[in-house]
Amino acid sequence: MHDYLRPLDADTLFTDAQWLAAMLGFESALAQAQAECGVIPQAAAEAIAQACAVVQVDREALVARARCSGAMGLAVLQPLQQWLRAHRPEGLDWLHWGSTTQDVVDTAQALLTRAALQALLAELAGLQECLTDLARRHAATPMLARSLLQPAQVTSFGFKCAQSAAALQRCRAQLQAQAAQALCVQLGGAVGNRAVLGPTAAAVEQALARRLGLQACGYSWHTQRDAWLRLAMEVAVCGGSLAKLAKDWSLMMQYEVGELYEAPRGSTSSAMPHKRNPVHCMQAVAQTQPVPQLAATLLACMAQAHERGLGEWQAEVAHGASLWRHVHAAAAALRSAAQGLQVDTARMQAHIDGLQGVVYSEALSQTLAPLLGKPGAQAAVAECAAQALQQAQPLQLLLERWLRRQGMPVDAALESALAAAANPRLAVQSSAQACGDLLARTAASASLKENDHALHP
Amino acid sequence: MHDYLRPLDADTLFTDAQWLAAMLGFESALAQAQAECGVIPQAAAEAIAQACAVVQVDREALVARARCSGAMGLAVLQPLQQWLRAHRPEGLDWLHWGSTTQDVVDTAQALLTRAALQALLAELAGLQECLTDLARRHAATPMLARSLLQPAQVTSFGFKCAQSAAALQRCRAQLQAQAAQALCVQLGGAVGNRAVLGPTAAAVEQALARRLGLQACGYSWHTQRDAWLRLAMEVAVCGGSLAKLAKDWSLMMQYEVGELYEAPRGSTSSAMPHKRNPVHCMQAVAQTQPVPQLAATLLACMAQAHERGLGEWQAEVAHGASLWRHVHAAAAALRSAAQGLQVDTARMQAHIDGLQGVVYSEALSQTLAPLLGKPGAQAAVAECAAQALQQAQPLQLLLERWLRRQGMPVDAALESALAAAANPRLAVQSSAQACGDLLARTAASASLKENDHALHP
Amino acid sequence: MHDYLRPLDADTLFTDAQWLAAMLGFESALAQAQAECGVIPQAAAEAIAQACAVVQVDREALVARARCSGAMGLAVLQPLQQWLRAHRPEGLDWLHWGSTTQDVVDTAQALLTRAALQALLAELAGLQECLTDLARRHAATPMLARSLLQPAQVTSFGFKCAQSAAALQRCRAQLQAQAAQALCVQLGGAVGNRAVLGPTAAAVEQALARRLGLQACGYSWHTQRDAWLRLAMEVAVCGGSLAKLAKDWSLMMQYEVGELYEAPRGSTSSAMPHKRNPVHCMQAVAQTQPVPQLAATLLACMAQAHERGLGEWQAEVAHGASLWRHVHAAAAALRSAAQGLQVDTARMQAHIDGLQGVVYSEALSQTLAPLLGKPGAQAAVAECAAQALQQAQPLQLLLERWLRRQGMPVDAALESALAAAANPRLAVQSSAQACGDLLARTAASASLKENDHALHP
Amino acid sequence: MHDYLRPLDADTLFTDAQWLAAMLGFESALAQAQAECGVIPQAAAEAIAQACAVVQVDREALVARARCSGAMGLAVLQPLQQWLRAHRPEGLDWLHWGSTTQDVVDTAQALLTRAALQALLAELAGLQECLTDLARRHAATPMLARSLLQPAQVTSFGFKCAQSAAALQRCRAQLQAQAAQALCVQLGGAVGNRAVLGPTAAAVEQALARRLGLQACGYSWHTQRDAWLRLAMEVAVCGGSLAKLAKDWSLMMQYEVGELYEAPRGSTSSAMPHKRNPVHCMQAVAQTQPVPQLAATLLACMAQAHERGLGEWQAEVAHGASLWRHVHAAAAALRSAAQGLQVDTARMQAHIDGLQGVVYSEALSQTLAPLLGKPGAQAAVAECAAQALQQAQPLQLLLERWLRRQGMPVDAALESALAAAANPRLAVQSSAQACGDLLARTAASASLKENDHALHP
Repeated sequence: MHDYLRPLDADTLFTDAQWLAAMLGFESALAQAQAECGVIPQAAAEAIAQACAVVQVDREALVARARCSGAMGLAVLQPLQQWLRAHRPEGLDWLHWGSTTQDVVDTAQALLTRAALQALLAELAGLQECLTDLARRHAATPMLARSLLQPAQVTSFGFKCAQSAAALQRCRAQLQAQAAQALCVQLGGAVGNRAVLGPTAAAVEQALARRLGLQACGYSWHTQRDAWLRLAMEVAVCGGSLAKLAKDWSLMMQYEVGELYEAPRGSTSSAMPHKRNPVHCMQAVAQTQPVPQLAATLLACMAQAHERGLGEWQAEVAHGASLWRHVHAAAAALRSAAQGLQVDTARMQAHIDGLQGVVYSEALSQTLAPLLGKPGAQAAVAECAAQALQQAQPLQLLLERWLRRQGMPVDAALESALAAAANPRLAVQSSAQACGDLLARTAASASLKENDHALHP
Repeated sequence: MHDYLRPLDADTLFTDAQWLAAMLGFESALAQAQAECGVIPQAAAEAIAQACAVVQVDREALVARARCSGAMGLAVLQPLQQWLRAHRPEGLDWLHWGSTTQDVVDTAQALLTRAALQALLAELAGLQECLTDLARRHAATPMLARSLLQPAQVTSFGFKCAQSAAALQRCRAQLQAQAAQALCVQLGGAVGNRAVLGPTAAAVEQALARRLGLQACGYSWHTQRDAWLRLAMEVAVCGGSLAKLAKDWSLMMQYEVGELYEAPRGSTSSAMPHKRNPVHCMQAVAQTQPVPQLAATLLACMAQAHERGLGEWQAEVAHGASLWRHVHAAAAALRSAAQGLQVDTARMQAHIDGLQGVVYSEALSQTLAPLLGKPGAQAAVAECAAQALQQAQPLQLLLERWLRRQGMPVDAALESALAAAANPRLAVQSSAQACGDLLARTAASASLKENDHALHP
Repeated sequence: MHDYLRPLDADTLFTDAQWLAAMLGFESALAQAQAECGVIPQAAAEAIAQACAVVQVDREALVARARCSGAMGLAVLQPLQQWLRAHRPEGLDWLHWGSTTQDVVDTAQALLTRAALQALLAELAGLQECLTDLARRHAATPMLARSLLQPAQVTSFGFKCAQSAAALQRCRAQLQAQAAQALCVQLGGAVGNRAVLGPTAAAVEQALARRLGLQACGYSWHTQRDAWLRLAMEVAVCGGSLAKLAKDWSLMMQYEVGELYEAPRGSTSSAMPHKRNPVHCMQAVAQTQPVPQLAATLLACMAQAHERGLGEWQAEVAHGASLWRHVHAAAAALRSAAQGLQVDTARMQAHIDGLQGVVYSEALSQTLAPLLGKPGAQAAVAECAAQALQQAQPLQLLLERWLRRQGMPVDAALESALAAAANPRLAVQSSAQACGDLLARTAASASLKENDHALHP
Repeated sequence: MHDYLRPLDADTLFTDAQWLAAMLGFESALAQAQAECGVIPQAAAEAIAQACAVVQVDREALVARARCSGAMGLAVLQPLQQWLRAHRPEGLDWLHWGSTTQDVVDTAQALLTRAALQALLAELAGLQECLTDLARRHAATPMLARSLLQPAQVTSFGFKCAQSAAALQRCRAQLQAQAAQALCVQLGGAVGNRAVLGPTAAAVEQALARRLGLQACGYSWHTQRDAWLRLAMEVAVCGGSLAKLAKDWSLMMQYEVGELYEAPRGSTSSAMPHKRNPVHCMQAVAQTQPVPQLAATLLACMAQAHERGLGEWQAEVAHGASLWRHVHAAAAALRSAAQGLQVDTARMQAHIDGLQGVVYSEALSQTLAPLLGKPGAQAAVAECAAQALQQAQPLQLLLERWLRRQGMPVDAALESALAAAANPRLAVQSSAQACGDLLARTAASASLKENDHALHP
C-alpha cells in the first residue's frame, strides 16, 4: 500500500517475476556458456535452455520450497529438474553444473541491479536536464542565500540549481564507474574455489558474462563484497544529494517563503481546499528518509562468516533491493517536481529587498575598508545594519548618514561605490559567474564521460 | 521473493487488504460513534456503515489516487463518496466528519499493529514455553560457559535457556504495557485541536475507541508520537533478545561445537548432501539483522515539522510495519527451531572434559587459598593450568604434584576438596540453582501479569 | 573540540575521572557489603575500602594495561593490589572476591548513568517549565498550524508548547520507570551464576545495592540486557521529542517566518553582522542528529555471544555514554533557547491574515453545509478560496458574493455566521481549550508521579 | 577511557591540538596564497603567518567562544586578531580575507583527514603484507570451508587470506582514488560564490591548495558534499572488510575450533588463568561495530538546508572523525593479531578428517556420474554420506560397498578415482590455484597503482 509514496509512473524494480526470470536466465546462460567452452554437451545445454524458457514456476510453491531449505536458488532448480526429467532428460545431469545456489542468486541480483541502474540513471539524467535548464534560465536571478536557516547574502537560483546538477553528474559518473566493478557474474561453486570447473572456470566465466551482459572479474566475490557494497554506497550518496535538493525545495515552497511551487495537482486535502501540498517533494523526503539506515544495514551484513554467512548474506540480498527502490523513486519524484516547477522570482527579490541591504554588509564593509580600516568598517556596518532592520531603512543610506555624522566627506564616488555594493544586479554577478563555470565544467565532464564510454563500450 | 526468509507458517502482517479493511473500519466506526453521541444523524451513520461494508475498492486505482494526492486516507474516501452518492446520499454529508486523513491512517495502523502484537505475543509465548521446558530439563546439564568466545567456566544449558525465557517474559510484559499507552485511536481533525468536533470530541473519541477495541488517550498524538515510538522500540529490544538467542544457538550448532542441532529438514544444499543447515537460525539472524536500523529510521522520523511533517510521518507509517514483520518472523523462526531442538549433552560434557579441569581454576584456587594465600594459589593454578592444556593432563592432578614438589602434605581431605572443586556435577550446582530461581521468578512475574490482566481487562 | 556543539554550562557526563571513581567505588562497596554479610573478614573490607579511597591511579598506565588485557575492570585491580601488598596485605586475598571485571564495569556504568539521568531529568524539567509557561501565556495566541510545510488552519502557539511539554512529562515519567528496572548492580561472577558467592549472593547483592544507591534485581543481567536497553531507548525517544521541538522552532525562526527568535548573543558570523543565528537550536539539531544511529548501535550490540561477547558488550558500554551526552546536551540547548525565547505574536497573526481567510475553509464550509450540502459547500469554498489567494481578497467576502450570484439570500444571520467562522479569536478557541486540557492532564500526571515517588522512594 | 578498545600503539587522530594547528595553518596559508596572487599586501601576509605561528590559543577559552557563536572557525580568529592588533596591525585588515568560518573548518578537516588517511593506509598495507605472507605460506594448507556455519568442502587457509588481502588492496586503491576527489581546500566565502575574491578566486584556490598539499576542485563544495561522503563511505566499506576478517578469525579462534590463536599476552582474566582471550580480534569487532551507523549518520547529514545547514553540517564534521578513528583502530588491531598469528594446520586437517570424507561428496558424485547418472550418483552419495557420519566410516569405503551391493564391478581404476576424489591434497589444489591467481592479480594491481602514482604524483 505504501507504494503511494512513489510517483505515478516510476518503474517497478526487483519484482518477484524479474527475480524468477533472472534466475532462470542464469541457469540457461550457464549451460550454454559451458557448452560453448566444451565443458558440457551441446544437447544438454539446449535442453536446459529450453527448460528455462518454457518451465512454469508456481511462485507460492517456490517460496514454500525456499522457506524449507532456506535457499532461493535451490528452490528454482526443482521445477527445472522435473521438466527435464519429463521432457529432455539429456539436460538433467548438466543442469547447474559446477555452480552453487549463491551463484544463481548473486548473478540474478546483478542482472536486476543492472536494470535498476538503468532506471535510476534515466531519472537522474532527466532531473539533471531540468536542473541545467533552470540553472541557465536563472543564472542571474537574485535570491537569498541562507545559512543556519537565516538570510546570509545574495546568490542566484541558477547557481543553486547548477550545484545540484553538478552533484548529479558526479553521481551518474560514479554509479557507472562502480557498476563496472560490481555488476559481475558470480561463479564460485560451493565454496568459491571453482573446484568443479577447474581450468575451464575462467573461460566459462567470460562466456557467461558475455551472454548475460555482465562483467567477469576473474574470481568469486561471494565473501568479499566490497565492490558490490561500493555501488550500493554510491546509491546511498545519490540519495543524500537528492535529499538535499528535496530539503531546499521544500523550504522554498513554504507558504511564507513562496519562492517555488510544484505544479497544481487537484485537491490534496479533504478539509483544506487551499492546500497546495508539495506532494513530489514529500515523496522524495519520505523515500530518502530510510536510505542512510538501509546503507547501514548493508554495511553491517559485510561481516559474514566464512564462505557464506548464516543470515548476513541473505539479509544483504533482501535489503539491497530496497535501497535501489527508494533512491530511484526519490529521483523520479524530484524529476516530476522539477518538470512542473514554478519559480517566483519576484518573491525572491522581495525577500532580498525586505532586508534593507544588510545582506550586502560584506561588500559595503569592503567599500569602506580603505577609509576606515577593516575592523572600523565592520563596526560601522554592524551598527548601521542593526538600525536598518529596526527602522526599515536602507543600510546604504544609514551608512552615508553615519559617515557624515563622523564628519567624513561623502563624495559622489563614494556614494556610487556604496550604491554598487548594494546593487542586487551587481551582487548576483559572482553567483552568475560561478553558475556558468559550474555548468561548463559539468557539461565537459559529461561529454568526457560519454567519449569514455564510446571508446570502451 | 525474500519472504523465503520467514518460516513456513508465520502469519502475514500489514497486508494491503488488511490496511484497506482497517481504513474502512475507521470510517464506519467513526460515523456510528458520532451518531451514538448525537453528532451526526443515525441514518447517515447507517448509510456510511453500509458503504464501508459493501464498497468495492480497486487496489490499483486507490494507489494511483493516493500517489496523486500523497494521501492514502484521502484516496479511500473517494469510492465511499461515489457509493453513497449512488446509493445512500443521506450519508454523504457526514462521511469522515471532523476527521482528517491522518486520523484514518494512524487509527488503521493502530488496528493493524494490535493484530501484529497478538501475533508476536503468540510466537513469543510459544518460544518462551519451549525455553522454559528446556530450562527445566537441562537445569543441571553441564556445559561450557564462554566469554569472548573462549571457554570460561561450567554453567548449565538450562540456565542459558532460563535467561532467555526470562528476557522474553519481560518483553511480553513490556509490549503489553506499552501497547496500552500506544494503541490509541487518532482523532485530531485537520490540525490536532479537534476544532470541528468541539465539546463532543472526548465522547466521540471514547465511543470510537470502544467500537474499535483501542484506547482513548484524550488528545491527538499526531505530532507527539513518543508513546507510539516506545512500543516500536520495545519491538526492537525484543528483536535484540531474539538475535542474542539466535547467535548463541548458531554458535552451538557449528559442527565443531555440535552441542545443538535443528530438526532435520531434507536436503538444504545442491552440492553437499551432508549439510545440515540451521535454516531457522539463519532466518532468525536474517530477520533481526535490519531491526536496529529500522528502529533508527523510526526514531529519525520523530523530528517531523509542525502539525504533519513533509515526508517524516509518511515514512514512519511505511517502515513501522517492517519492524513488526521482521521481529515477528524472527520469533516464529526461533520457535520452530526450539520445537525441534536436539541437545547433545554428551558433546557438552566432552568439551568440558577436553579442557582438563582448567575451567575449575577459580574453585581450585579458592580451595588452595587458605594454604597459599589468594595470590599464591592463583599463581600455582595458573602455572599448572598451562601445563594441563599442553600435556593433556588433569589440572587437579598437576596441582597435587606441584604441592608435593613444594614439600607440602597432600592429605585425603585436601585431595577430596580438590576433587570436589573439579567435579562437573558439583560445579553445575550454582547454575542449576540460578536456573531454578530464575524460572520461579519468571513464572511469578507471568502469573502476576495475568492477574493484572484479569483485573483490568 | 566538537564540544562547542554543547551549550555553555551543560554538565559533563561520563568523564574518565568519573569512571575511575565509580570502579573504585564498586570494589570498596563490594568488600564492605561482603563483610556485612559475613563473607569476608571485616579487616579485609576496611583495608580494601582504604585502598580504594587513597590509591593513586595513573590514567595512562591504566589505559595501557586495559589495552593489553582488553579488560578495563582488570586494569583497575592492579594498582589496588599493589597498594594492598605494600600497605594492608590483609585485604589482598579478598579484593574483588567472587566478582568479574564485567561486574565492575557494568556497575560503574550504572552509577554514571544514574548521574546522567539526574542531569537529563533536570534539563528536561527546566525545559518543561519554560514550555508550560509559554503554553499558559500563549494558550489563545493564534498562529498558523502547518501540515506538509503548508498553512493548514489556525492553532495557538500555546497548544504547540503544551504538546511538547506533555511529551517531556511522559519522557520524564518513563525515564524514571525504566531506570528503576535498569539501574541495578551487576553481580554475576565469571559467568553469571554467582558460583563463588553461592547462597550468600542475594544478601551481598542487596547490601551492595544499598551502599551504592542502585537496585538489586536478583540475578545477573550480563547477557540479557533488555532492561538496560529499554532505558537507552527511552533516552533515544526523548531525543526524538527534542528533535521535533528543535525542528519546529528552527522553522519558526526562519527570517521569512519570523515568529520566534533566540535571545541575541553578539556576533555569530565573521562576514555578516546582521545574522542572528539560532545557535541553541543549531546545537540541539546537531546533538539529536546522531541519536537514532546511536540507538541502533546499542540495539545491534544486544546480539552478544554466550556469557560475554567478543566486542559487542565492550562496544555497547563505549557508545551508551554518547547517547546520554547527546540527548542531555540537546535538552540543555533547548532549555537555553526557551529561556530567552522571543515570541512575535504580531507576525503570527500577519501570516494568518495574509491568507485571506482560506485557513477557515473548513469552518466556512461547515457554515454553508446546511444550505448547500457538504459537497456543494466544499465546492463553493474551494472555488472562492482559489480566487481569494489570487485576488488578495477575503474568502468570506467572496463567498457572500458567490452566494448572491447564485441568487441566494445572504441575510444578517448568515453574514454573522460567516464572520464568526472566519474570526481568528473564535478559531483559536478549540486550540486554547485543547491547550488547557493538556496542561491540566500533564500537571495531574506530574503530581501523581511525585506522589508515587513519595510512596516508594 | 574507552580508548582501551584501541591497540597499544595506534596513532591518535583528530586531536584537539591537531584541529587547532590545522585551522591556524589554513589562515596562514590563505594569507600567503593571497599575497602570492597579489590580492593582499605581502607585509600583511607575513604578519598573519607570524601570528598563526606564535599565537597562544587557550583551548578552554576557544571552546567557550565557539559555544557562544556556534562557530568553531570564528572562535579561532579572535586570538589572531588580538595578537595582530598588539604586535603587527598591518595584518589585521587582511586576516581571513574573503573567507568564511566554514572554509576554515572544512579545510582543516581535509588536512586532518589526509593525516588519518595516511595512518589508515599504513595499517592496511601492514595488514595486507601479513595476509599475503600467510596466503603464500598456506596456499595449499587444507581447511574446511564453511557455509551457514556448517562444514561445506575443502578450501585452503591461504586462499582465505588471499581473498582478504585482495579486498584490502581494492580498499587502498579506492581510498586513494576517492581522496584525490575529496581532499580539497574549501574556499567559497560566505555563501559559496567566492564573491569577495572574484576573478582571483581560482588562482588563490590553486595557490592555497599547493601550500597545504590538498587538491583544488575549482568550486566550493560546502553544500554538495558527495565527494567528501564518498571517501567516508569507502572508509565504512573498509570497516566492513575488516569486520569480515575479524569475524572469521574470531570463529577460528574458538577453543572448539582452535585453528588460529593470537600471540599470548599474559593474563586476560582475573578469575580464569587459562583464558587466552583474542584481545585484538575483540578490539577489531568492537571498533567496527558502530561503523555502519556512523556511515548512516554522515549520510543523513547530507540533507543540509541551503548554503549551510542548521546542525547537519556541524554534526557531519563532528562524527566524520569518529568513523576514521574506529576503522583505523580496527585495522591496527587486526594487524597486531596478524603479526602474532599462530596457525594450527594439524587442527585444520583434523576437522576435515573428522567428517569421514563427506566434504568430498561433490567430487565423489562427479566421479560416479558417468556410471550412475548425476541424479543417481547424488542419491548414492547422499545415502552413504549419512551413514559415514553415523558410523564414523569413510564415505569412499561405504560407496565402494554400496556399488558392490548393487552388483557393480569396482575395479582398480574406479577405486583409484574415488581415492583421488577424496584426497585432501588433491582437493586443496583448486583453492591453491585460486589463491595463487588472486595473489598474482593483487600484486599486479598494486604495482599498477604504484606506477600510476609515480606518473601522476
